[in-house]
Amino acid sequence: MSEVYAARRGRLRDRYAAAGTAAALVTRPANVRYLTGAVPPGAALLLGPQEDVLLCSHAPTGEPAEGRLDEDLRVTVLPTPGGDPAVAAADLAATAGVGSLSVEEHHLTVARHRAMGSVAPQVQLSDLAGAVEQQRIVKDEDEIACLRIAAEIADQALGELLESILVGRTERHLALELERRLVDHGADGPAFPTSVGTGPNSGKSGHRPSDRRVEEGDFLSVCLGANYRGYCCEVGRTFVIGTTPADWQIELYDLVFAAQRAGRQALAPGAEYRDVDRAARHVLASAGHGEGLSPSTGHGVGLEIDEDPQLAPESMGKLDVCVPVTVEPGVHLPGRGGVRIDDTLVVRPEADGGPELLTITTKELLAL
Amino acid sequence: MSEVYAARRGRLRDRYAAAGTAAALVTRPANVRYLTGAVPPGAALLLGPQEDVLLCSHAPTGEPAEGRLDEDLRVTVLPTPGGDPAVAAADLAATAGVGSLSVEEHHLTVARHRAMGSVAPQVQLSDLAGAVEQQRIVKDEDEIACLRIAAEIADQALGELLESILVGRTERHLALELERRLVDHGADGPAFPTSVGTGPNSGKSGHRPSDRRVEEGDFLSVCLGANYRGYCCEVGRTFVIGTTPADWQIELYDLVFAAQRAGRQALAPGAEYRDVDRAARHVLASAGHGEGLSPSTGHGVGLEIDEDPQLAPESMGKLDVCVPVTVEPGVHLPGRGGVRIDDTLVVRPEADGGPELLTITTKELLAL
Repeated sequence: MSEVYAARRGRLRDRYAAAGTAAALVTRPANVRYLTGAVPPGAALLLGPQEDVLLCSHAPTGEPAEGRLDEDLRVTVLPTPGGDPAVAAADLAATAGVGSLSVEEHHLTVARHRAMGSVAPQVQLSDLAGAVEQQRIVKDEDEIACLRIAAEIADQALGELLESILVGRTERHLALELERRLVDHGADGPAFPTSVGTGPNSGKSGHRPSDRRVEEGDFLSVCLGANYRGYCCEVGRTFVIGTTPADWQIELYDLVFAAQRAGRQALAPGAEYRDVDRAARHVLASAGHGEGLSPSTGHGVGLEIDEDPQLAPESMGKLDVCVPVTVEPGVHLPGRGGVRIDDTLVVRPEADGGPELLTITTKELLAL
Repeated sequence: MSEVYAARRGRLRDRYAAAGTAAALVTRPANVRYLTGAVPPGAALLLGPQEDVLLCSHAPTGEPAEGRLDEDLRVTVLPTPGGDPAVAAADLAATAGVGSLSVEEHHLTVARHRAMGSVAPQVQLSDLAGAVEQQRIVKDEDEIACLRIAAEIADQALGELLESILVGRTERHLALELERRLVDHGADGPAFPTSVGTGPNSGKSGHRPSDRRVEEGDFLSVCLGANYRGYCCEVGRTFVIGTTPADWQIELYDLVFAAQRAGRQALAPGAEYRDVDRAARHVLASAGHGEGLSPSTGHGVGLEIDEDPQLAPESMGKLDVCVPVTVEPGVHLPGRGGVRIDDTLVVRPEADGGPELLTITTKELLAL
């Protein structure tokens, strides 16, 4: 694996070198993990003109949640507890005679940035901006394999829940049970706090589980994801509790399903991000549900559960092959509830069969 | 409750006004919650020369995890999704003719700070530093009541675990079960990821649960905490699995217990932070365990699980009445395991009986 990380760092180096900067400091945790394989808490990666160094305030533990560090990378543990690896990196860069250092201004706080300037006044600090985030958008097949396993785990956890008795249980308990099952099936943990919404809470994006119990006739919306070796996926489904869904439930479900399908079908290499959003949004808006929709229809997933690209009306850019994204439209009717359907897919060329669906739990309206 | 938040904001206003600043912007989530009762994701609190305004990118949901917002506070939801409430606040301050605005430079990123400067070039930005964190150190009795309930919940969850069969179960499963029990007993959630360490993993600070199973003869260390209405407590205990602890286990346990007791006994109004640390550290160092200890013996708890003060060798300052802290020394012997004992206590005057112990699970060495 070591070459993979070295190659990623090499691509980043080419980029900042082209911008005339001698060295770069990466501090955002997911970016550090992308470039080194692991992220001991608070670690900072200094990409030097010659050698790269990972600076840590504590020794890496090698625990699964931290990831497996590139063995060829030099690691320096700060001698004093409480020290800031970013400040130590600035000091190291100054000592090495580095004249210019590109930093992640969207991650470093003003206070840390100033402390770096104080220990290394001779080093010119510039902005690396979202260079690593951009590089992370297109995944390699090993990354996609991790996402595929993460999706399998989430599908399994969800499938088992559906076989159990649901009426009378609280949103909170269902969410906790799903998270336990994710871990049982090999996840490093949930990719994000599991959302379970029943009755009037169903269909709400990011609803935090409450003490409401599942009742006959409810919609039940579940959204969960597994973190597997750092990679995060997402699956969301809505079910009906009881034998016969009401007409309004069937109608609303069919509508959201049609919107979600339209979004999925718009996932093609070269498609504009905003056109994918529009495909799904248009279906909902035409049916009179244009108000109160989520600001985006989906987003990239990877080492973070919500990363670039954003599938949203104002989003600029085009999909590439091997970009995993969610497609997750939903409608929530205040006081009544609603429907949300969420898949993780990977953009693939049409010649290869089009988008690869990672989350394969059925999207039929199940009555449980 | 509204007056409580208004009074807290008033004290903060006095402080920055004395420093010659017209207005302040609070963005660190725990600080926003302390001053308003709630924290919708990404919210920013503008303390104006006249009115205070909470700026949010989404409407507050009123869910328990967010807290209950001060009803008298003005709330503005940004019209466009994806906008930054801090930037909107700078704009608002400029429009109101504010000349100087104090911001949390230890929380705002360089990029956000620059964006604020761009929309409001006429507003002079200065540093509020840790003013709110300082104000949060001494708790009122309502805050302590929340911590007391949080501690009861953690004690209950731990007590129930001890009644179950432990041998053969994995660290991960025990941790998940404890977290489920926390929620069962009314916690908003765990205060931090529950740590369970068995055998060679026992006694490690912040150990993340692995797939290792509990075996006869193991030390078993557990550290957990509940979040109740935003307030976080911590309790940690070490047990022995099987009927008869080994001599080295009894010896090590007695030593850590003595260190922890020395730390607890040093908790008095006016005591230096570092003297509390020294009291516990000295016991361990005298027995030859001075190397490899945690950098601190304990820390404040409240709206964050790790807040000021730090009970550490270099820490400057003195304890006040009504400051809740943890006392959590531990020793870990590589390859063998170790002992960690962790309580949450509130500093009280000797006339009131000395430190109030919130986490009352027994500290006898239980053989389970």
